Amino acid sequence: MTTSPQVPRALSEAELTELGIRAFVGLGLPQEDAQAVCQILVLADLFGLSTHGMSRVESYGERLLVGGIKARAQIRVERVAPAMVKVDGDNGTGPLVGMRSLQAAMALARECGVGIALARGSNHFGPISPYSYLAAKEGFASIIGSNATTTIAPWGGSDARLGNSPLGFGVPNPGGQPFLLDMAMSVVARAKIRSALKRRESIPETWATDKQGRPTTDPAQALDGFLLPIGGHKGYGLALLVDLFSGLLSGAAYLNHVKSWVDAPEEPQNLGHFFILINTQLLGSSQWLTERMMDFAAILHESPPADPGKPVLVPGEIELAKMAQQRQHGIKIDASTLALLQQHATRTSN
Amino acid sequence: MTTSPQVPRALSEAELTELGIRAFVGLGLPQEDAQAVCQILVLADLFGLSTHGMSRVESYGERLLVGGIKARAQIRVERVAPAMVKVDGDNGTGPLVGMRSLQAAMALARECGVGIALARGSNHFGPISPYSYLAAKEGFASIIGSNATTTIAPWGGSDARLGNSPLGFGVPNPGGQPFLLDMAMSVVARAKIRSALKRRESIPETWATDKQGRPTTDPAQALDGFLLPIGGHKGYGLALLVDLFSGLLSGAAYLNHVKSWVDAPEEPQNLGHFFILINTQLLGSSQWLTERMMDFAAILHESPPADPGKPVLVPGEIELAKMAQQRQHGIKIDASTLALLQQHATRTSN
Repeated sequence: MTTSPQVPRALSEAELTELGIRAFVGLGLPQEDAQAVCQILVLADLFGLSTHGMSRVESYGERLLVGGIKARAQIRVERVAPAMVKVDGDNGTGPLVGMRSLQAAMALARECGVGIALARGSNHFGPISPYSYLAAKEGFASIIGSNATTTIAPWGGSDARLGNSPLGFGVPNPGGQPFLLDMAMSVVARAKIRSALKRRESIPETWATDKQGRPTTDPAQALDGFLLPIGGHKGYGLALLVDLFSGLLSGAAYLNHVKSWVDAPEEPQNLGHFFILINTQLLGSSQWLTERMMDFAAILHESPPADPGKPVLVPGEIELAKMAQQRQHGIKIDASTLALLQQHATRTSN
Repeated sequence: MTTSPQVPRALSEAELTELGIRAFVGLGLPQEDAQAVCQILVLADLFGLSTHGMSRVESYGERLLVGGIKARAQIRVERVAPAMVKVDGDNGTGPLVGMRSLQAAMALARECGVGIALARGSNHFGPISPYSYLAAKEGFASIIGSNATTTIAPWGGSDARLGNSPLGFGVPNPGGQPFLLDMAMSVVARAKIRSALKRRESIPETWATDKQGRPTTDPAQALDGFLLPIGGHKGYGLALLVDLFSGLLSGAAYLNHVKSWVDAPEEPQNLGHFFILINTQLLGSSQWLTERMMDFAAILHESPPADPGKPVLVPGEIELAKMAQQRQHGIKIDASTLALLQQHATRTSN
């Protein structure tokens, strides 16, 4: 290749997967475990969620090398009831713990109609939509959540005591596009506040507080403070419930018991996740579900847009279009991510 | 009593329940079914959610009298898999369908660890927190949702195509207060916009759009338009997912297939609900769960408040305090609701 290292390169899905697997094997993971991790991270990149895709090899790799994540984790899946498993991630790589939990919960739901996996001893598991997508492809609706490093203040409080925990949902459509929703509870990501600061613009006072917990329009003060949740007490409540289900009930850490990813890279974070899977094949035929899903999407798409240039979308539509486009034209990967993958991949032969 | 009919009266829980049951029996419900309905509505009033409590006898009663709700519904619960039931509400009173679904899902979760009930053929089922509270008292965590009459526009759209569907969660605390979250997806209720109009105040542009779907600060235009969801596309996505789970997957109506409560009181609405119950007793001892829940609440309560007069709260705290206070001092009921309950109650002897 003659491409300069600063220009993103486009790789095929197979190329990126193969390179990713070699990198994670280089970082010490067994081949099969590296495959599971890369299945999630490559889907994240395909969906255009590059901040949660293969670029994570940087932070995952750093922790794998210092032992903050265990490369050869012995994940244990304990079936405590016909439709419930507890998963001990043994401080393994997050998407590996996530994939094992997803598979266990799908197996339960196949048999029982619904299944739940509660995972502890885990790490950052990537975005949620890849899991919901894999579930939807096999006919399962899903509700999935994870807790996260502590970054936000309780509603009305003034210090970081909970994470911006993501929550996701999926509903399959056997004859078309599934619905996929993957969201954190903050109004915006910190990156958006950083952009405003760079452009010397003020921000809406609904985005963040200063470090005393007071709403601010100054991006600099906001970056010293805390992100605000969507709908105020509503988003705060949702973030707590995600932490209760994924952290407290699973036996993982929760709230500020979650160790900092940045300050203590060598210490296990003990994150938790929950996976609730619902077998839609027990509810009606594929044709029945396809017809209803097509009708549901059509009703929304047919609402006259408030801005004629911006048609109404449904959740997951942007990500699935991006996947189709990148499957055709290749997945754009940052030069720095690519270099790091190649560097870790060469460890394999050592 | 010498109280004027305009002044709210305080009734004991037993008095309100007994009067409510007589009213719903007067409206044609079997005694046992009236009890189930009143269990939910009285809890709503105890929690201070009076707009979703016994005051609903007005709209429920109107529809029961014209046959828009069936007084003697034959609710069918079909177990389609070990941990899944489909419930056909037979157009019965909403909280009755809700209670039967809740009980079925708890029975499944007791046996299987998790259980799901998907209900169709239902009506407005009251607020969600009473269901989550009853579940929590028996050791179940819950995720519960319902769809609703179409009142809001898709994100970026300009006509009413989806309901302000409520979503609720609960987590038990065997030795203390459970966490209860019960929320609709709009930033505010329409009542808050009506108050702003009355006070001739403008509203934040995040609350609602005009009838063309454009954000507005004018409460009059907002009342002609649509409520905005929390977090824009995030709240829109959540509202859709609640409708997909409660309406589309259950076999009920969804989006604008839901018949208007006001325009067609004699037509079945065919609302749907979902109840996911999780048996926390399989996850650890009561002591284990109590200790974690107490610690979780304490971490949040100890965040120094941004406004010294407003300590940090946890979801459900306001409702549970209100319940304790009203159990001691009586439940305040509007004179008009009381008169209507007494009027329907006298039908019993006809």
